[in-house]
Amino acid sequence: MALIVQKYGGSSVADPERIRRVAQRVVKTRKAGHQVVVVVSALGDTTDNLLDLAAQVSKNPPERELDMLLSTGEQVSAALLAMAIGSHGMKAISLNGPQVGIVTDRAHTQARIQAVNVDRIHRALSKGTIVIVTGFQGMTPDQEITTLGRGGSDLTAVALAKALSAKICEIYTDVEGVYTADPRIVPNARKLPTISYDEMLELASLGAQVMQARSMEMAKKYEVPLHVRSSFSRRTGTIISKEVKAMEEVVVSGVSLQKDEAKVTICDVPDRPGIAATIFTRISDVNINVDMIVQNISRTGFTDVSFTVGRLQLGKALKVARRVAAEVKAGRVAHDEGVAKVSVVGLGMRSRSGIAAKMFQALAKESVNIDMISTSEIKISCIIRKDQAARAVKALHDAFGLDKLGVRRKR
Amino acid sequence: MALIVQKYGGSSVADPERIRRVAQRVVKTRKAGHQVVVVVSALGDTTDNLLDLAAQVSKNPPERELDMLLSTGEQVSAALLAMAIGSHGMKAISLNGPQVGIVTDRAHTQARIQAVNVDRIHRALSKGTIVIVTGFQGMTPDQEITTLGRGGSDLTAVALAKALSAKICEIYTDVEGVYTADPRIVPNARKLPTISYDEMLELASLGAQVMQARSMEMAKKYEVPLHVRSSFSRRTGTIISKEVKAMEEVVVSGVSLQKDEAKVTICDVPDRPGIAATIFTRISDVNINVDMIVQNISRTGFTDVSFTVGRLQLGKALKVARRVAAEVKAGRVAHDEGVAKVSVVGLGMRSRSGIAAKMFQALAKESVNIDMISTSEIKISCIIRKDQAARAVKALHDAFGLDKLGVRRKR
Repeated sequence: MALIVQKYGGSSVADPERIRRVAQRVVKTRKAGHQVVVVVSALGDTTDNLLDLAAQVSKNPPERELDMLLSTGEQVSAALLAMAIGSHGMKAISLNGPQVGIVTDRAHTQARIQAVNVDRIHRALSKGTIVIVTGFQGMTPDQEITTLGRGGSDLTAVALAKALSAKICEIYTDVEGVYTADPRIVPNARKLPTISYDEMLELASLGAQVMQARSMEMAKKYEVPLHVRSSFSRRTGTIISKEVKAMEEVVVSGVSLQKDEAKVTICDVPDRPGIAATIFTRISDVNINVDMIVQNISRTGFTDVSFTVGRLQLGKALKVARRVAAEVKAGRVAHDEGVAKVSVVGLGMRSRSGIAAKMFQALAKESVNIDMISTSEIKISCIIRKDQAARAVKALHDAFGLDKLGVRRKR
Repeated sequence: MALIVQKYGGSSVADPERIRRVAQRVVKTRKAGHQVVVVVSALGDTTDNLLDLAAQVSKNPPERELDMLLSTGEQVSAALLAMAIGSHGMKAISLNGPQVGIVTDRAHTQARIQAVNVDRIHRALSKGTIVIVTGFQGMTPDQEITTLGRGGSDLTAVALAKALSAKICEIYTDVEGVYTADPRIVPNARKLPTISYDEMLELASLGAQVMQARSMEMAKKYEVPLHVRSSFSRRTGTIISKEVKAMEEVVVSGVSLQKDEAKVTICDVPDRPGIAATIFTRISDVNINVDMIVQNISRTGFTDVSFTVGRLQLGKALKVARRVAAEVKAGRVAHDEGVAKVSVVGLGMRSRSGIAAKMFQALAKESVNIDMISTSEIKISCIIRKDQAARAVKALHDAFGLDKLGVRRKR
């Protein structure tokens, strides 16, 4: 008998028929003798529909009220799943963020988990009850409802798996696992049987929509074993765990694409120590997540500072950028919404040189112009024109031979 | 400056356009210098849609999970209204049942309020903030979410008005006030400028859908002044308060119709002391509200016991009735869904005789057969065939001259 955390995304619980199917899977796991804690997202498009309602009553809805609004979505799916499981004659109980004891900070719409109290879950599990937890939400110490940001249900699942010392945290989604590239763009992309936290972290933060980046960070930190798999099949998906010592060293594991990027450039920034700190402190103060930052060497005493943000945050980012530009006596603020970020990721990069060169060559061969470059130990990202993105991903997948490896890693 | 509680029903907040209109009304009240606490129901058909989803995943959804599910509806409308008010530049905060401190017993789906803690509301009001409270719900002492039964938002409003010592509790609905009969059935029905708690209580429990009966009971008990009015106009509605000493004594105030009734008869019940107690204890044990009870005098040692329940509760009621019939060694259990209850209500009845006779004559003239009769100090109800109901209401409205009084009560 093991304790298993299962997380089902919005597409897995999109309608009553799918909820009944999820219930069957949960019941099967329970009947196999396991203790089961299920984390659910909101039904299908619920969150978007709620955001649409909010937009119709307010141009700038307060984030606290957004959290009150959005948190209802998961409560609906959790209650429905508990009912569906109950109709199989199994005991099930749904618990929302406040009930389950997920305590967060006060950063509404992107709160961070501070503590997880699993007493109530343990009490229920010990009575043989299946526990259904609303993903994506928590409560501040003063009883305010918070949400954890888009994809936050993954974070809920990982945090509970850690707090409960679960044997595995299964992430159910509408794809079969983690692929070398998006199969909709690259038809010969392969499913990876295993991948390391670090690689997955880069893929996640680079737009592979399988798992939210923050949840990967937490999974890595606490070494929570993850299994990304499809809720529509019984096949094994991709296991995400600590670095796997490979028989056959693979340089690049995958290519990822992030299309919802926007670029902001503050022109003619005085090149003085502390200016960059001022700029990005102001930006983080309003809870905007900056992705890439590029600053060129200055020769004139002035420099241009560029950064990318999620496209949805562009309006907010521009407002702050203009304010801070005035504050530090910089020039105008330019922006570009027509950009995308393409990245190659792989642990093997650490020990091999020439990966960047190979990447740039492959892009040049396809006449893809590179706007910004950013690198880490295990990834290289380029900002390019959005309309060239699909071509770029295909070219890189080919250039690194990602379609050719039979079994990727023999243990 | 006064403290005003306003309650808006589902039709008043059915869509974003109506929510914006409610926001304007609330803002106007606030700008007039009043402190405002708003209680909202779920958007339009939300509750029915959620119940439909539940029915699709479970034949017999557990009541605890129903409450988790249904309570989300009011949280959505409360958050949206807070946003809409915020967009007028006014401070507003939405609070759900647990946050607002409405503590109930553990009777899921029809919980009773045990305590209302208004500290948080007072704190917000003292800062000039408009407080939006989710109607229809509360929390048990062990953090379980409960709902107060259909129409429970009225109860929330009255309980808050009492706890906050509000000057008035305004009940906004889609009709202009309380009428002498349903204007859809009786076109010349009149709006009553005032009505007493007792009369309204009878009307509410008799199917006048303006206010939930339990909320009227509470309003009467604590003498909370109510104003039932339309959210679509500025006109004064009907004031409900303690008995008004009338210049002109009115015998009958209104005629009401309750169509969703079903009749259950337990036949051949042994006529022994305690048997009725046994029957109705069993029925109340499963939280079924019995409406009328009729038992005829027995001459044979056996009697028939008939009672009516809401039609939605018929299935549950029949199950219990059959069990208890076996227990007390009674005969078969019959039922009839084709019935309706028509009633005349009025404080004036207390001092006048012959009202019942006049009622029965009016019905007889229309060939309406009377199946059961039940009377109180201020009302007389008859169970009749449902298909004769509209005719009966019109006949009674005419017979008691309800269309003829100009100004009903001069103070």
